Amino acid sequence: MCNKCPNYTIHGASHHFGWDNSFVPAITVAPGETIEFKCHDSSAGQLTPDSTVADVATLDFGKINPVSGPVYVEGAEPGDALKITIEGFAPSGFGWTANIPGFGLLSDQFTDPALTIWKYDPDTLAPALFGKNGRVPLKPFAGTIGCALAEPGLHSIVPPRRVGGNLDIRDLAAGTTLYLPVEVTGALFSIGDTHAAQGDGEVCGTAIESPMDATVTLDLVKDAQLKMPRFTTPGPVTNHLDAKGYEVTTGIGPDLMSGAREAVSQMVDLLCKTQGLAAEEAYMLVSTCGDLRISEIVDMPNWVVSFYFPRCVFE
Amino acid sequence: MCNKCPNYTIHGASHHFGWDNSFVPAITVAPGETIEFKCHDSSAGQLTPDSTVADVATLDFGKINPVSGPVYVEGAEPGDALKITIEGFAPSGFGWTANIPGFGLLSDQFTDPALTIWKYDPDTLAPALFGKNGRVPLKPFAGTIGCALAEPGLHSIVPPRRVGGNLDIRDLAAGTTLYLPVEVTGALFSIGDTHAAQGDGEVCGTAIESPMDATVTLDLVKDAQLKMPRFTTPGPVTNHLDAKGYEVTTGIGPDLMSGAREAVSQMVDLLCKTQGLAAEEAYMLVSTCGDLRISEIVDMPNWVVSFYFPRCVFE
Repeated sequence: MCNKCPNYTIHGASHHFGWDNSFVPAITVAPGETIEFKCHDSSAGQLTPDSTVADVATLDFGKINPVSGPVYVEGAEPGDALKITIEGFAPSGFGWTANIPGFGLLSDQFTDPALTIWKYDPDTLAPALFGKNGRVPLKPFAGTIGCALAEPGLHSIVPPRRVGGNLDIRDLAAGTTLYLPVEVTGALFSIGDTHAAQGDGEVCGTAIESPMDATVTLDLVKDAQLKMPRFTTPGPVTNHLDAKGYEVTTGIGPDLMSGAREAVSQMVDLLCKTQGLAAEEAYMLVSTCGDLRISEIVDMPNWVVSFYFPRCVFE
Repeated sequence: MCNKCPNYTIHGASHHFGWDNSFVPAITVAPGETIEFKCHDSSAGQLTPDSTVADVATLDFGKINPVSGPVYVEGAEPGDALKITIEGFAPSGFGWTANIPGFGLLSDQFTDPALTIWKYDPDTLAPALFGKNGRVPLKPFAGTIGCALAEPGLHSIVPPRRVGGNLDIRDLAAGTTLYLPVEVTGALFSIGDTHAAQGDGEVCGTAIESPMDATVTLDLVKDAQLKMPRFTTPGPVTNHLDAKGYEVTTGIGPDLMSGAREAVSQMVDLLCKTQGLAAEEAYMLVSTCGDLRISEIVDMPNWVVSFYFPRCVFE
């Protein structure tokens, strides 16, 4: 599953909740080393293949989004960039997607908990079945990938920041190279929150959340003075999704957030009508494979946000 | 160049500035007819292959974005949707991209006018040369495509609205089917502002602005009660761009607009550094081929906006 074999393994016991630059490193490595991380799912095992919607309602949010690490990289200093080559993933075959009340782009419209349990082939990564006739293409990646912040103390795992973290960028998949600003000596890199698939936006708040092993190579770019994360993909990023084109809805107006909400609402309505889905099913489905794009951001005062749903899911 | 031959031609003389439901139709057609529109560029011919940056400074904004039409579609009533099958384009081979002071995502940073003149092969649509070694893939589309509004009076052409208009959605290319809400009897459809290429966002405010002929088939979906424009693409939308992958920059924070501005600024800086471009050159270039995507919009309180620049332009 990996382009490169690891020299080290970080086991699942070496995980932490939140970011804190006083956490004791799980390991210290020289730049250039390849490391395998055993990653929990974002519920830290609270949700299992046997879970029901009742388990979503009782989730312990103190145990959300564990990340494996941290890894101390020798020679890393503030001002450097950590270069992370994402070698590959060994997925588990189990996943879940939930609507968690109070969380997600349309949380005002979807106030009840909901849960989809996924089973997929971890070897072939064939599209995962959704309901009777949906098939969601898979592309594993780590939702949370980051370094410790300069600011002392414990920081919530939920928001991404300059140093990365809960970026939820679905193209941080095998083959991609990610650069993150280093803010503390040793960088203190951690990874987790692995996803089997996600659309741009992660609109319902969760992806196909799935425990898996992630292997990365860590290197340094000295004195890069990087301001925000950036990455390079080795090839196309939507080949797994786009062969049959897209159904696209739009939201038009002077606020990007309202436009995004409108576009996603319209898509949920469209899928309910054309595919006979319940609204909460459509909402969870589009979070795993639909993409939010900004079509134009200059035609004052109205911007266009578009939501792209891949037709291959139902065709 | 077209999937279907037109039964009617709207010549360039039949154009209008702004939207007004009292404009006299250029033609009346039955649903199902295919129509060719001769479209001016968005400067209405003020910029030519011989133009210089001085001509950008003296543009007459009263003559911006002419659209050809309007077409009265028999039987169209408020509540219907106009179904527009985009049959194809016959491009001219000339285009321009400008930084127009006061307009564009980074108008505070780019206060001086700038101009790029493009020449491309209208038959092969081979990537257009940019500077010494840039090559921008082309995919012609109409930036402005819409119907008249219900509200009486003259409305600015600049902002897109529920009925479409200056949508600047680069995937409204040949083969796509667009649905627009009808708000007035006859729909009063017009089209123009043709582009040879544009990235999602149109970040500098202009694309490869290029006069060309556009052919569409107009049909009706009675009583569709559509709230916002939507469209269906016949296949992948980035095949012309993505073969070599992307360089991606990010903007992370609680405001999508700030995130978008940050991501584009970072990309301009990256291209200046790696390709030796002047900042205004990089800004105009990325407007023609870079894509703004919302990577996540749920990890409170910080969202991630990413800007994807296709590596094929320089590799």
